[in-house]
Amino acid sequence: MNAVLDTIFEHRSIRKFTEQPINAEQLDTIIAAGIAASSSSLLQVNSVIRITDPIKRKALATLAGNQPYVESAAEFLVFCIDFQRHIQMNDKVKPEFTELTLIGAVDAGIMAQNCLLAAESMGLGGVYIGGLRNSAQQVDELLELPKYTAVLFGMCLGHPAQDPQRKPRLSPQVIMHENSYQPLDINKVVEYDQTMMDYYASRSSNQKQSTWSEQITTKLSGESRPHMLGYLNGKGLAAK
Amino acid sequence: MNAVLDTIFEHRSIRKFTEQPINAEQLDTIIAAGIAASSSSLLQVNSVIRITDPIKRKALATLAGNQPYVESAAEFLVFCIDFQRHIQMNDKVKPEFTELTLIGAVDAGIMAQNCLLAAESMGLGGVYIGGLRNSAQQVDELLELPKYTAVLFGMCLGHPAQDPQRKPRLSPQVIMHENSYQPLDINKVVEYDQTMMDYYASRSSNQKQSTWSEQITTKLSGESRPHMLGYLNGKGLAAK
Repeated sequence: MNAVLDTIFEHRSIRKFTEQPINAEQLDTIIAAGIAASSSSLLQVNSVIRITDPIKRKALATLAGNQPYVESAAEFLVFCIDFQRHIQMNDKVKPEFTELTLIGAVDAGIMAQNCLLAAESMGLGGVYIGGLRNSAQQVDELLELPKYTAVLFGMCLGHPAQDPQRKPRLSPQVIMHENSYQPLDINKVVEYDQTMMDYYASRSSNQKQSTWSEQITTKLSGESRPHMLGYLNGKGLAAK
Repeated sequence: MNAVLDTIFEHRSIRKFTEQPINAEQLDTIIAAGIAASSSSLLQVNSVIRITDPIKRKALATLAGNQPYVESAAEFLVFCIDFQRHIQMNDKVKPEFTELTLIGAVDAGIMAQNCLLAAESMGLGGVYIGGLRNSAQQVDELLELPKYTAVLFGMCLGHPAQDPQRKPRLSPQVIMHENSYQPLDINKVVEYDQTMMDYYASRSSNQKQSTWSEQITTKLSGESRPHMLGYLNGKGLAAK
């Protein structure tokens, strides 16, 4: 093990923060870490909106489905797909999607994970906020995003005021396949369901009785933000 | 600075590898690092296909647009969106896209970046291979991906046999905005174009004369894998 692996394996999402701010040098390092990540064909198709306005923070906390840590975290960053930059530079640029939207989403994940690990390596903690997509259009308007730029997710960062347990994950035998796709070994999911039952029953706060299978069935049975296609279409970022 | 930041800021894509294999413990650590990353709503919607079959490696190197390091790297991993797993578990699961495909793409980026940093922290190097999407359907068939599972990108990993310079990036003043989207400061791009000209002219191999603006204009003027929408539709992963 080394310090990088320690940081990676110690990850827990942090949703409670002290009032201590993140200093300017730390923030610069976090952003620089994101920018240092790989970028598909060096296109650099992401922008990050740092939200310092307390009124916007409060609005975003509500729009994300009432997640108060969006308001209370020391920093809140919004990661966007951004092809507006390229189009401003040259009117020959004619983005074609779905491919470019995929690049924007993958590269945002790569970039954001560098930001989160950089923060965690400095003793900070954070959590991804996909809930911004609950109200993508309203978030978009609040941040005055132009055409060809779209909101993907947010990230709360700050000094941790909680010490949650690490959440168990599916086994590598489920996630990794060799040479071709291998059918699911349902026994591995049964084992994992038991592990998650034990985890939820024993964790220090927010105890519940539920398996992973039950949770994902609930999550994936209803509608999952069906407005997202219309939103991306409206931004010029879908289905061409 | 700390060891995590050092690893993040020392990143260069590595495309030449020695013949030394990655040992089983290292590979297990790399995969475990990916699995330890954040997962949207703990859905865990990604699979990784490890390619050990030399015939498949050779075919993938060609399908990726003739990238020989896909064949020669010690390890080649293919990152996929995978909702097949969830659908197998419960027929009540009815994935809705575009949202879930976005989750799959963002989470694949987050997971893969943990894998790459874990590898880099152990003295290994690697490179993302978006070129697999050049021939998404053929790659899909080669890996026998079922419905609701789609190829996103690959990753070569191995012991570096080259020591390239770090590629300059756009300035943080271009990437980061505060509270609302800020128009592009074209002077920053002019500066960056000069920096990239100098970088390309001075680097040890593959010297060329080109600015970033010229490159991205070329990249974004033609068609960008227009088959991707049809591919995702065919997998049940688009436009609903």
